[in-house]
Amino acid sequence: MILAQANPFEGPSFSRRNRLARALWQVTWLLLFRPTPPPLHGWRCWLLRRFGAEIGQGCHIYSDVQIWAPWNLVMEPRSCLGPRVICYSMAPVQLGKRVVVSQGVHLCTGSHDYTADNFQLFAKPITIGTDAWICAESFIGPGVRIGEGTVIGARAVVMRSQPAWMVCAGNPARAIKSRSHPHGFNP
Amino acid sequence: MILAQANPFEGPSFSRRNRLARALWQVTWLLLFRPTPPPLHGWRCWLLRRFGAEIGQGCHIYSDVQIWAPWNLVMEPRSCLGPRVICYSMAPVQLGKRVVVSQGVHLCTGSHDYTADNFQLFAKPITIGTDAWICAESFIGPGVRIGEGTVIGARAVVMRSQPAWMVCAGNPARAIKSRSHPHGFNP
Amino acid sequence: MILAQANPFEGPSFSRRNRLARALWQVTWLLLFRPTPPPLHGWRCWLLRRFGAEIGQGCHIYSDVQIWAPWNLVMEPRSCLGPRVICYSMAPVQLGKRVVVSQGVHLCTGSHDYTADNFQLFAKPITIGTDAWICAESFIGPGVRIGEGTVIGARAVVMRSQPAWMVCAGNPARAIKSRSHPHGFNP
Repeated sequence: MILAQANPFEGPSFSRRNRLARALWQVTWLLLFRPTPPPLHGWRCWLLRRFGAEIGQGCHIYSDVQIWAPWNLVMEPRSCLGPRVICYSMAPVQLGKRVVVSQGVHLCTGSHDYTADNFQLFAKPITIGTDAWICAESFIGPGVRIGEGTVIGARAVVMRSQPAWMVCAGNPARAIKSRSHPHGFNP
Repeated sequence: MILAQANPFEGPSFSRRNRLARALWQVTWLLLFRPTPPPLHGWRCWLLRRFGAEIGQGCHIYSDVQIWAPWNLVMEPRSCLGPRVICYSMAPVQLGKRVVVSQGVHLCTGSHDYTADNFQLFAKPITIGTDAWICAESFIGPGVRIGEGTVIGARAVVMRSQPAWMVCAGNPARAIKSRSHPHGFNP
Repeated sequence: MILAQANPFEGPSFSRRNRLARALWQVTWLLLFRPTPPPLHGWRCWLLRRFGAEIGQGCHIYSDVQIWAPWNLVMEPRSCLGPRVICYSMAPVQLGKRVVVSQGVHLCTGSHDYTADNFQLFAKPITIGTDAWICAESFIGPGVRIGEGTVIGARAVVMRSQPAWMVCAGNPARAIKSRSHPHGFNP
């Protein structure tokens, strides 16, 4: 999707087709998504599916969530994108079952290669495991995998993948303790 | 206020009465609070008092402050909630005299019990002592008490209570030096 | 520009002339800057120059950038202020050639003297060297100089000046490795 050898100082990093699709989504978002009242999660999921998102049953997506490219979003059943979440989905963003992404989280798949002459834009997928909870206003960087059941603390800044069933916090985020599985199973 | 044994994946965590009161406040905020020009602090304080807030003389509250439940807000005289502050007052938020809460701060009283099967929502009060200053875009978590006169640095993430007359910074925030009392009294 | 011996609890910290100029800029921003479509960078640069900004050729400034005082902004050619940047320019903010300030960065020149009886407001300039990249949602504090070519990581909190051609990250931010000059020259 990202043009190879594009220089962001000199021109767009995306194809014309990609930019048109995003413009269409932006207009749709502004008119039909953003102004909807909080409980209409089903309607917002339906709209996102029209733009290629894969969204399971019972997902919650708040009306002020910003999604860069809906066609890169996969949400398994009962997962949630909370108020003011930024889903900067230049690459795929995948949420497992019952994943909670709390208010103000930034899921950021894009970056630049600062060692390259052309400051090449790149993007890497973000994957969040079943039952994980990404707390308020944390930041998840490009290529990060969050293990199943893991809790990322409020305002944590996660630039590396994190293991399953841990609690991680800080900037940069580190695993600070283990989280016991609610049902007594602790792999 | 929070329903016991509520499961946020299955239904609301608040009573019908609470949700109606908040909807009424939201409409009031949108029509009568948000569009007011910056100097009308007195009018905004008056509106908040109609919804149960306790607000002393000479308080400043900017028009883009978001307050979850005004009836949980207590502000002593000459305290201030700056631009873009989020006051997520599921539990009481109390500001002492001349407390300054700078732009973009998040006062977050709510969280979830991630050890419980039902991911129970809970909330704990935030209390900020007289003459404290909470600098720009810092985050204050549930149950935190900030001591009198303490300065919380910009973008600090405060998940534990902090002592009086200190300067605290970082993520997670730690006390990094003491602050001398402006009037020479340093308890 | 900031009034000496002003007490922010008792009255404004800026002259009447300064407050009027900012009100005029705010109205202009709201009507002629904020509603413009993304590609109209040239128009937004032209508007800012009318309010005293010095902006070189080929600069990009997104429509939701908030600029406190345009007359304190200096941007050398091909530098960029990305989406949702807050340029709190109470003191001068200077960007060198090809500086990229990514989405959501806060350039904050203002603070208060918490050792003074009157909690005096003060402001110190921010200077960012040629070819530096300030990544998403980082915070740059008053008086900070970022050296040429330096990368400030996402969500970093920079309260001290940083050397040239380094990568800095964390809260508080520290230099964590050197960045090689793209053209092989590494001073």
